[in-house]
Amino acid sequence: MRHKFLPAFVCLMLFISMQASAKVRGESVIVSIDSEVLDESRELIIHLPNNYSRYTDTSYPVLYLTDGQRNFAHAAGTLDLLSQDGMAQEMIIVGITNTHRARDFTPTHDESYDQWGISGGADDFLNFIEAELKPFINSNYRTNNYAILSGHSLGGLLSVYALQSRPEMFQAYFAFSPSLWWDSEVIFSDAAKFLSQPEDLNKYLYVNMGNEGGQMLSAFERYKELLNTSNREGFSYDTNLDVSESHNTTALAGMSLAFQKQLTSLRPSGAVIEEGVTAIQQYYKDVSKKYGYNAKPSYKAINHAGYNALEKQDYDTAISIFRSNTESYPNKSDGYDSLADGYEAAGKLNKALEMRKKALAISYKENVENNALKTRLDNLQQKISGDQK
Amino acid sequence: MRHKFLPAFVCLMLFISMQASAKVRGESVIVSIDSEVLDESRELIIHLPNNYSRYTDTSYPVLYLTDGQRNFAHAAGTLDLLSQDGMAQEMIIVGITNTHRARDFTPTHDESYDQWGISGGADDFLNFIEAELKPFINSNYRTNNYAILSGHSLGGLLSVYALQSRPEMFQAYFAFSPSLWWDSEVIFSDAAKFLSQPEDLNKYLYVNMGNEGGQMLSAFERYKELLNTSNREGFSYDTNLDVSESHNTTALAGMSLAFQKQLTSLRPSGAVIEEGVTAIQQYYKDVSKKYGYNAKPSYKAINHAGYNALEKQDYDTAISIFRSNTESYPNKSDGYDSLADGYEAAGKLNKALEMRKKALAISYKENVENNALKTRLDNLQQKISGDQK
Repeated sequence: MRHKFLPAFVCLMLFISMQASAKVRGESVIVSIDSEVLDESRELIIHLPNNYSRYTDTSYPVLYLTDGQRNFAHAAGTLDLLSQDGMAQEMIIVGITNTHRARDFTPTHDESYDQWGISGGADDFLNFIEAELKPFINSNYRTNNYAILSGHSLGGLLSVYALQSRPEMFQAYFAFSPSLWWDSEVIFSDAAKFLSQPEDLNKYLYVNMGNEGGQMLSAFERYKELLNTSNREGFSYDTNLDVSESHNTTALAGMSLAFQKQLTSLRPSGAVIEEGVTAIQQYYKDVSKKYGYNAKPSYKAINHAGYNALEKQDYDTAISIFRSNTESYPNKSDGYDSLADGYEAAGKLNKALEMRKKALAISYKENVENNALKTRLDNLQQKISGDQK
Repeated sequence: MRHKFLPAFVCLMLFISMQASAKVRGESVIVSIDSEVLDESRELIIHLPNNYSRYTDTSYPVLYLTDGQRNFAHAAGTLDLLSQDGMAQEMIIVGITNTHRARDFTPTHDESYDQWGISGGADDFLNFIEAELKPFINSNYRTNNYAILSGHSLGGLLSVYALQSRPEMFQAYFAFSPSLWWDSEVIFSDAAKFLSQPEDLNKYLYVNMGNEGGQMLSAFERYKELLNTSNREGFSYDTNLDVSESHNTTALAGMSLAFQKQLTSLRPSGAVIEEGVTAIQQYYKDVSKKYGYNAKPSYKAINHAGYNALEKQDYDTAISIFRSNTESYPNKSDGYDSLADGYEAAGKLNKALEMRKKALAISYKENVENNALKTRLDNLQQKISGDQK
């Protein structure tokens, strides 16, 4: 199927079925891990992507989500919708439920907030994630070495603190309404130095803020200014002030944009796609090196390159690109649908028909919306029977 | 716990735990229903709220969601986060998966879009919902007779068409990026007349649009103008043009606002809450009559009234209001926490301690974030042991 750069009306076709066999997309499991570092048991709510158990040759990025119980369902739901359209990567989500929130998320002890319980345990909590949680997840699930830390409020403070103190731990950091005001804005004592270091910083950071005031907002603005002065090679970030959201909804509203922007930080430009498959493959080799994980050329980029060839009426190249994409992503119904587009444009209607049938059949296993596949199959069948009259 | 109207810093306390026993909030089930009206089997993805199986005396509103497979997870996730903060009602979600999308969502046959398959079956589809689906859901689940129809794109067109042609079927209608351009804007042939009728229209409508152009946008603007001319008593609506969202993400982004605004359409004003419990109870009697369902006085409104009394240092009234709320909502940990606030303010520390322990114990069964409950229990225990020295 042709994606992206499409006018709204054509996008509608994304959604136009036959008898479906619905399943709930993805699965959630509860796991407990005994932490020696924290001297307590920690509960995890883990979400595995749609078809995780079928795509046994696929490994996934991991989203580590603090305030797990609160943020798990909306993060999983947002990711589900976006990944259906290729607007976010499919990921394993590890929601960490709280034991002592104020302790785990704060880098220092601030006695003004002792009513929230003891504070200043962020280093221990990051030790737990680094030495116990990540190894546990990596040994029990198919992960690809790309990991994101996501937090809201005090959890957002933790994300920024983790970026500054342990940039090697994650590839991306999400900080929704971060409490950068904590302990007289102690986070800033290292921020300027960190952001002006000469070394490359191959990381992505997303920070947002809602309709909030006081030091919550002013510390966000202060951090934003610092970010704008950073020249660190490889570092990309986005900040978003959305006054239509409250403190309590900035993680919900921001998650969508954070996922999309984080994916953008990994994507080839239109110019690279225009150059064709070899350039795209080289791009992903560079991405793999830059972020330290095995970045497979994205389905969508290769698919675009195929449609670029199709537009130039270079049918053989288009068909060859689409076919290679079905080989790289054999469980993706859309790949066969694109290949069918190639055959149909080249006038090879019977081969196109075969691929449209295959796309539809796979879509049921893949558990995706397939109205458009069905309609295009119907249309092609009518075209073939019309030709034969 | 004190809610709403709180500055950001105090809101943080919402999130500050002890050993939790995490569960995945809510449960999803797949159900099939044979439709005589449509002469086909339809699959439903149903989400039951957190604690549905425990709160056996509670009945819930129902959200009927078209394009079910696509929109199920994000709608459930958004609702989960918002309902944790009392910013949306807990609901049963019925996702209807597609068979022939273009057929079911369009009120007329438009031959210009025959490539999407046959169109014009909206009346049949609404007959199916009215005569088969709603009775099926109402007889199998604990529903409270308040129902919402939600749709995106062509599904949004269906929502608006259902409002105009069958306003009795639902209490609220969500239309995200509705395809109001369909068949030369045929939806407008009845819109002006419908919106200017003299009868009351006790309904809520939410319509949004993203960064879209052409007739998609202009038809939205045209409908918005018509809405602004409507004087129908009881009718409330919100429209939102959010150019930061694309056609594909308006349902994801808009769901949060739609849930919040729909709840606002049912809520008593601050003035009513200020008047106290009797006024709130009368308000909900009126709401029940207006929308035709049994609207229980909201936990949050009564809780506010309790804190209003507490602010006036009218401890007996506050305690009495908080206690009545625990009787109405016996499974809600927050109710006991508020009652503890009442006792603590009145200097009845041992009774407060008992309620804080009860709040914490119930929070584990309730499966909610409980850091703040734990911290307040700790603080009270310290206060009591300090007093005793």
